[in-house]
Amino acid sequence: MKLTILGCYAATPRTITNPTSQVLEIRNRMFLIDCGEGTQVQLRKNKLKFSKINHIFISHLHGDHFYGLVGLISTFMLLNRQTDLHVYGPKGIKEIILLQLRYSNSFTGYNLYFHELISKESEIVYEDEKVVVKTIPLKHRIYTNGFLFEEKIGDRKLNVDAVQEYHIDTCYYQKIKNGSDITLEDGTVIPNAEITFDPIQPKSYAFCSDTMYDESIIPIIQNCDLLYHETTFLESEAEKAEKTMHSTAKQAATIAAKANVKQLILGHYSTRYANIDLFQQEAGTIYSDVLLADDGKTFEF
Amino acid sequence: MKLTILGCYAATPRTITNPTSQVLEIRNRMFLIDCGEGTQVQLRKNKLKFSKINHIFISHLHGDHFYGLVGLISTFMLLNRQTDLHVYGPKGIKEIILLQLRYSNSFTGYNLYFHELISKESEIVYEDEKVVVKTIPLKHRIYTNGFLFEEKIGDRKLNVDAVQEYHIDTCYYQKIKNGSDITLEDGTVIPNAEITFDPIQPKSYAFCSDTMYDESIIPIIQNCDLLYHETTFLESEAEKAEKTMHSTAKQAATIAAKANVKQLILGHYSTRYANIDLFQQEAGTIYSDVLLADDGKTFEF
Repeated sequence: MKLTILGCYAATPRTITNPTSQVLEIRNRMFLIDCGEGTQVQLRKNKLKFSKINHIFISHLHGDHFYGLVGLISTFMLLNRQTDLHVYGPKGIKEIILLQLRYSNSFTGYNLYFHELISKESEIVYEDEKVVVKTIPLKHRIYTNGFLFEEKIGDRKLNVDAVQEYHIDTCYYQKIKNGSDITLEDGTVIPNAEITFDPIQPKSYAFCSDTMYDESIIPIIQNCDLLYHETTFLESEAEKAEKTMHSTAKQAATIAAKANVKQLILGHYSTRYANIDLFQQEAGTIYSDVLLADDGKTFEF
Repeated sequence: MKLTILGCYAATPRTITNPTSQVLEIRNRMFLIDCGEGTQVQLRKNKLKFSKINHIFISHLHGDHFYGLVGLISTFMLLNRQTDLHVYGPKGIKEIILLQLRYSNSFTGYNLYFHELISKESEIVYEDEKVVVKTIPLKHRIYTNGFLFEEKIGDRKLNVDAVQEYHIDTCYYQKIKNGSDITLEDGTVIPNAEITFDPIQPKSYAFCSDTMYDESIIPIIQNCDLLYHETTFLESEAEKAEKTMHSTAKQAATIAAKANVKQLILGHYSTRYANIDLFQQEAGTIYSDVLLADDGKTFEF
């Protein structure tokens, strides 16, 4: 998996920072998560191909998480996109986008599907043969979901030396990778474990923004490889965090520790802080493996 | 008057160019004209004070002219703006903005007034003691207006030497600047022309984008000091210009010449052209005083 941070600052776009948007690449799929104003330009700056984005996940309908969406949809139109585009987000997103396209008398030349979310329970919103995406219901001022991206367990790996030793025909290879035992012509049964290795462990990524401290997300994100958790404030502003239903760095780290995730990435910093290292320091007192998101940064895991 | 070009390229925002937005400063007023995605950031880059913008004029509801508006309105909210904000634009703009604010459960702490335009005739949309703004109905794929900003004629200028010679008391100065003659104590009447100079000639600026070639705007913009006229295409793409209801550089220059404007600024270039000097060259064959808009450029006149 490769995560590219297009923007990770709260509230308004500035000359040097961007509101929330990120791209997650998994097994040749490219998912866009949130789409604040300026996302198009950030995609260009980071040399990410617009045409590879087929699924866009929007956490909630605060402007710093989706005001760039209608422009991106329009740009796809101008680029003569043909491929279907799927948008997953809170109820209302379809009305907002279509109203604007209607007034501009615009029609997408591609199929635009909205998958509007209303559930307060975690649910699967996307699934194909390699990836599954579930919502993570979050607690914020308006209806908000995080998203958990999980690779599915892949095929078993062929033990090439072993299959050649048994003179097994290549036409059986996929069956073997799927986990089948093989019966040789003399009737001998070769157990699958003898001719394969375990598949690569699937990875998982949890995006949690915006949210206040909420332990009810822990069962959903338990043991995930990488957790992006918002930390709008430092603990010194805990009161403000609670009032605005955001989190502090300490709270983000506490969730990471309790959910036993492998790594924590912090983001969604309030622009009041000149130095984001303070977030890492504060979170580091609770949880060891803390990374800082920043615009243009990539994380491979 | 001072005009700052925040963005002057057609269609999509790119890493190096921005969609339409400009700021016109007249007699201590700051008017924002159009508000494509990224306008906020361009305002910051050009060090223009957000708080001085009280009136926003939107030409039409194509995304490259207004997708930055909802974000700007939200940012005003976050900056705790108290002053009234007035938005002038086509019918529909209120519904689009309010729908988004409603879904985000946001309320502006300031009064937000929408002045929705539907007339196909030129009309006065803004007027105060120093400036008047009229619409310029344009021909584009959807309902579109340009805007004509006119300074009102100011006070006559006091001839300081003359008033001192006649020992006229300072309390009469404003009356004199307003054009009155003065009667001295001995009954002598001093005609106003003897103690004043003509006022500074008021300036005017016409913004015309987006539009196809349309001579019906000429009577409205006749003799104006500065005309910004769109030129999405060069004459080599005249067919495309006509089909999409845009103009070529030659057409923009023809309008400038026929309307006898003092200077022409070209803008709204299609991003297909790597070198915008070609627009100036083409327009220069028809009309002599052609300037090129570019993002971040200012024009004082």
